[in-house]
Amino acid sequence: MLIKISFAALALAAFSASPAFAEEPGVGETLINLAYSIDTFYFLMSGALVMWMAAGFSMLEAGLVRSKNTVEILTKNVALYSIACIMYMFVGYNIMYGDGSSSFIPGLSFWLGADNSVDAVLKSGGETYYSNMADFFFQVVFVATAMSIVSGAVAERMKLWSFLAFTVVLTGFIYPVEGYWKWGGGFLDSLGFSDFAGSGIVHLCGASAALAGVLLLGARKGKYVNGKVRAIPGANLPLAALGTFILWLGWFGFNGGSELKISNIMEANAVSMIFVNTNMAAAGGLVAALLLSQLWFGKADLTMALNGALAGLVAITAEPLTPTPLVATLVGVIGGLLVVASIVMLDKLRLDDPVGAISVHGVVGIWGLIAVAFTNPEVSMIAQLTGIAVIFAWVFGTSLIAWSIIKAVMGIRVSEEEELKGVDIMECGLEAYPEFNGK
Amino acid sequence: MLIKISFAALALAAFSASPAFAEEPGVGETLINLAYSIDTFYFLMSGALVMWMAAGFSMLEAGLVRSKNTVEILTKNVALYSIACIMYMFVGYNIMYGDGSSSFIPGLSFWLGADNSVDAVLKSGGETYYSNMADFFFQVVFVATAMSIVSGAVAERMKLWSFLAFTVVLTGFIYPVEGYWKWGGGFLDSLGFSDFAGSGIVHLCGASAALAGVLLLGARKGKYVNGKVRAIPGANLPLAALGTFILWLGWFGFNGGSELKISNIMEANAVSMIFVNTNMAAAGGLVAALLLSQLWFGKADLTMALNGALAGLVAITAEPLTPTPLVATLVGVIGGLLVVASIVMLDKLRLDDPVGAISVHGVVGIWGLIAVAFTNPEVSMIAQLTGIAVIFAWVFGTSLIAWSIIKAVMGIRVSEEEELKGVDIMECGLEAYPEFNGK
Amino acid sequence: MLIKISFAALALAAFSASPAFAEEPGVGETLINLAYSIDTFYFLMSGALVMWMAAGFSMLEAGLVRSKNTVEILTKNVALYSIACIMYMFVGYNIMYGDGSSSFIPGLSFWLGADNSVDAVLKSGGETYYSNMADFFFQVVFVATAMSIVSGAVAERMKLWSFLAFTVVLTGFIYPVEGYWKWGGGFLDSLGFSDFAGSGIVHLCGASAALAGVLLLGARKGKYVNGKVRAIPGANLPLAALGTFILWLGWFGFNGGSELKISNIMEANAVSMIFVNTNMAAAGGLVAALLLSQLWFGKADLTMALNGALAGLVAITAEPLTPTPLVATLVGVIGGLLVVASIVMLDKLRLDDPVGAISVHGVVGIWGLIAVAFTNPEVSMIAQLTGIAVIFAWVFGTSLIAWSIIKAVMGIRVSEEEELKGVDIMECGLEAYPEFNGK
Repeated sequence: MLIKISFAALALAAFSASPAFAEEPGVGETLINLAYSIDTFYFLMSGALVMWMAAGFSMLEAGLVRSKNTVEILTKNVALYSIACIMYMFVGYNIMYGDGSSSFIPGLSFWLGADNSVDAVLKSGGETYYSNMADFFFQVVFVATAMSIVSGAVAERMKLWSFLAFTVVLTGFIYPVEGYWKWGGGFLDSLGFSDFAGSGIVHLCGASAALAGVLLLGARKGKYVNGKVRAIPGANLPLAALGTFILWLGWFGFNGGSELKISNIMEANAVSMIFVNTNMAAAGGLVAALLLSQLWFGKADLTMALNGALAGLVAITAEPLTPTPLVATLVGVIGGLLVVASIVMLDKLRLDDPVGAISVHGVVGIWGLIAVAFTNPEVSMIAQLTGIAVIFAWVFGTSLIAWSIIKAVMGIRVSEEEELKGVDIMECGLEAYPEFNGK
Repeated sequence: MLIKISFAALALAAFSASPAFAEEPGVGETLINLAYSIDTFYFLMSGALVMWMAAGFSMLEAGLVRSKNTVEILTKNVALYSIACIMYMFVGYNIMYGDGSSSFIPGLSFWLGADNSVDAVLKSGGETYYSNMADFFFQVVFVATAMSIVSGAVAERMKLWSFLAFTVVLTGFIYPVEGYWKWGGGFLDSLGFSDFAGSGIVHLCGASAALAGVLLLGARKGKYVNGKVRAIPGANLPLAALGTFILWLGWFGFNGGSELKISNIMEANAVSMIFVNTNMAAAGGLVAALLLSQLWFGKADLTMALNGALAGLVAITAEPLTPTPLVATLVGVIGGLLVVASIVMLDKLRLDDPVGAISVHGVVGIWGLIAVAFTNPEVSMIAQLTGIAVIFAWVFGTSLIAWSIIKAVMGIRVSEEEELKGVDIMECGLEAYPEFNGK
Repeated sequence: MLIKISFAALALAAFSASPAFAEEPGVGETLINLAYSIDTFYFLMSGALVMWMAAGFSMLEAGLVRSKNTVEILTKNVALYSIACIMYMFVGYNIMYGDGSSSFIPGLSFWLGADNSVDAVLKSGGETYYSNMADFFFQVVFVATAMSIVSGAVAERMKLWSFLAFTVVLTGFIYPVEGYWKWGGGFLDSLGFSDFAGSGIVHLCGASAALAGVLLLGARKGKYVNGKVRAIPGANLPLAALGTFILWLGWFGFNGGSELKISNIMEANAVSMIFVNTNMAAAGGLVAALLLSQLWFGKADLTMALNGALAGLVAITAEPLTPTPLVATLVGVIGGLLVVASIVMLDKLRLDDPVGAISVHGVVGIWGLIAVAFTNPEVSMIAQLTGIAVIFAWVFGTSLIAWSIIKAVMGIRVSEEEELKGVDIMECGLEAYPEFNGK
């Protein structure tokens, strides 16, 4: 017992680093170093997985549009990712995670490359436990995800450069502001609104911005003819399936990384639970949507199944930690059923969303936020509903203004001729599959 | 020396955690925490890589079937992965890793979300060294792999829902039972049968189930005409190559993760050796199959080369640790030669396997299990042959029964008209590439 | 204070491992074990990401060639990766990282599977901090990257087996020798030449070998007709976009892993900075190339944008650590502008490079090496220019000799008939998309 006590004293002594250890790091310092390293590495791997989701959205959307609009949707996707990174570096990250008050141009330190000093980490005794740069990397791939949601919904008819102009606004301002309200410690956070990895902050945000765009933009020619909904099939369904798998994989980083720490038993267990629940929700959503499409439409509709998996993923994102795997599966199942119903419903409302993004990320994002009140006893339904209303009102409102200004200044819709011939040739000067089309 | 002895005593004291440390973790506890975290993180990354293999099988199979049957094979793949996850959660994992005797409904604790408590881990002194949930995540992606093998072999003619019914049986019962015999500590394990990451348990299992299906199902129309074998080329070879690369990447998780531990020097070396050997076997298999196809057929057949890489991967899976890199390459080379010969042979036997899955995973899976007796001196050939016989007999036998029941109840083969028009339109109501086909 | 001193003594005592600890590892040994494990795991994950780049090059190139030459470019890519692994195991790694003098056949120990013994690691007190096998795995995927660059530039007209013969020479000899000069501790390293992750050693190397091949090979039929440059569009642009995303993702391993260590605060910060800078440079390059193509050609050219992202990645590879994120973005921007100009310029010079590989990896590789002198104050411009000259002279010279010998012995260019019909049918006996082409 004496030994144990003295040992604990030693450990404590080591944890409170002192100049004496500067040259010869003691055990306590080494432990802080190792934990910092593990958490940073975990952050970087998670960020890499989320970055990979940009490829997922690109493939999903490229698979679900017609071949004549494929190059342009790819261009939008690669460009929005890049613009999101640049805008978030210059402006967004500082708005979202700056100190929020003191300086007119906050966070200069960031893009000038400041990170935690070794001394500061050691002095914090491990309170500061991962690299700021790793944090930025993880965060920046989230803002790109939000914007990726928009590109699908406005596909096949929106001007490329108008879309990219909106990208600047959303990734630099609209997203970071609502992000600050929750994850930056703003009023939604104080209110008790709970959104673990962003069913609201990321997915509902993207869907709300998309809805504003779709309302101003109108439906594609030929989608709603004489009161009938005409299916416009995607040109390359293997790409859509690939995109879904990429997103599924990337989501382990999206949700798993949002635990923000893995370097002890409790946190490692938490991250593992999140991986399992994320996977089970996707599986539940896929099976539910596939069964519903078989029962409702008489066909095993692959695109519905894929959207079902994504719906499961979106639904569990608001709270992937507290549900049991069984409950996570059910949260996904409900997401999968909702997304099929929502896609049908939006078409009835003549809201033309070529890839179903508003249903997947908006309708199911709301379901995910509501579900938290059921799966996490500490969260109140009122806080969740308030959060949903605030996010939707802010993003939809500001997006409507932004889209309207862009529409007035440069237009947002391509000409009828361009829509007929396809935006690829007119905007990008290239065909996606120049040898495959008889047309 | 005195210092060293007292130090060791301190360390030992710390490892045997006591309530005194509950509030203020000592060095020993922190070390256990860090090691648990590293091993769990490694498990999760490995699992994510294996999950990614589901995308690999999907792309491989979608690339090797005709365009008219592409949507359906994609639907089968995404659905089988999801069903595998759900069935393994409810039933399979409990059969395979439950205590195997005590309770009628074992493992309820699992899908209700139980994981190791921090106390239990600390009390174990690091014997319990990773999250149960991470283990489940890693295991569940294996069962999906086994089932993915089947979908390729029965492609282009099996009914979607009959296939999914079989998926329920294989992933919930057939696979977990034989998995239990080896990895759950059953009689194959006691017998000395050695199968590191599943050349037998996973790959031969999938191939045996596939063989039973193919025998009941018969060949595709037009494959064997007037005693001649007609090649039915796949519609999209870049997808097949992509799928192979995905599988190759995922295999680092499949084999690398099966070491189950990375948190010390010896284990880190072991995992590294497994990565190298896995990679070398694939490279050897690819080169061997490519050369053989050039010499035998006079053409550098890409699909043979891809199957050669997969054969190398399957072959090394039974023992990726004990061979040197040189020997691993040779194990892969023999796998690559075998797969080409086997594909030709199966066609002579009129066993129609559109993607060569039975050859890659079955024939070469057997080779991999036999090779263990050469590369690992502790393993006896008799144990290996016994294991092969047991796995094949069990999986083939039960699968034949399951397929037969499904055939009797709902049929397993699509109608001739459906086969002619393609299963995509009839079963899924969608075309994979609606704009690309002149036909 | 007394406690601290005695504690430091304990730690030191533990770090200098002694036989007394063989059975019961002390804290110091456990710390060394954990750090070794983290660094090795990080190496393996980085290597897996770089291995994934082989898929990226395959998809990029398969997307940018015509459909009739797609199977063959895929075959080249999968085969070159495999050959690179085998040659580097037998010869290349030993040349590059062997002791460089003592033995005629160095490094036998490697492919016979030698790794650091636990004792040796502990005795080194953590100086030896990762698995040799993990190092080999990380290094071998680099040599494959160098060779992947070549396949794109010589696409659509070079004989498959001649290409693979050259692969043997480059991966076994040409690359390892110049790699030894820098990363093996040779004269370029002594000279102060700085190339963090291989803008020169890997990318300029690949481009120099490609240039030699293109000069001997000549342009594709129909590329330069009557003094005009004719665009030959790629058959499948979604694949090209996918390939770019894969490369972007893989580059986090390429650059991030080249820090070689992550297991303390300073190193974790360094790897994080590298991730951020790698990402920002790619984003900057993409946006710059897209804007320039819009301004210059009046079209938002997707292929230019993709090459811009790759240019940003190549440019930052020589020094991804010392620049701030802002400066990294600018390094990428300049890379993106250069690549567009270079692609236009090379066409004026009638150097036919179907995928722009020489511009992306050669011209921008040089820019990256020069940029180091601006972003890292410790590096002299003279050393950088010397390194560029030496790498180019060595690789271009030896490649020209190797290509010439191969040309004399087996020819390097396919027949006119074969070029017209496509190399796929003639060399591989397969079509990439047998159902999609009207022709």
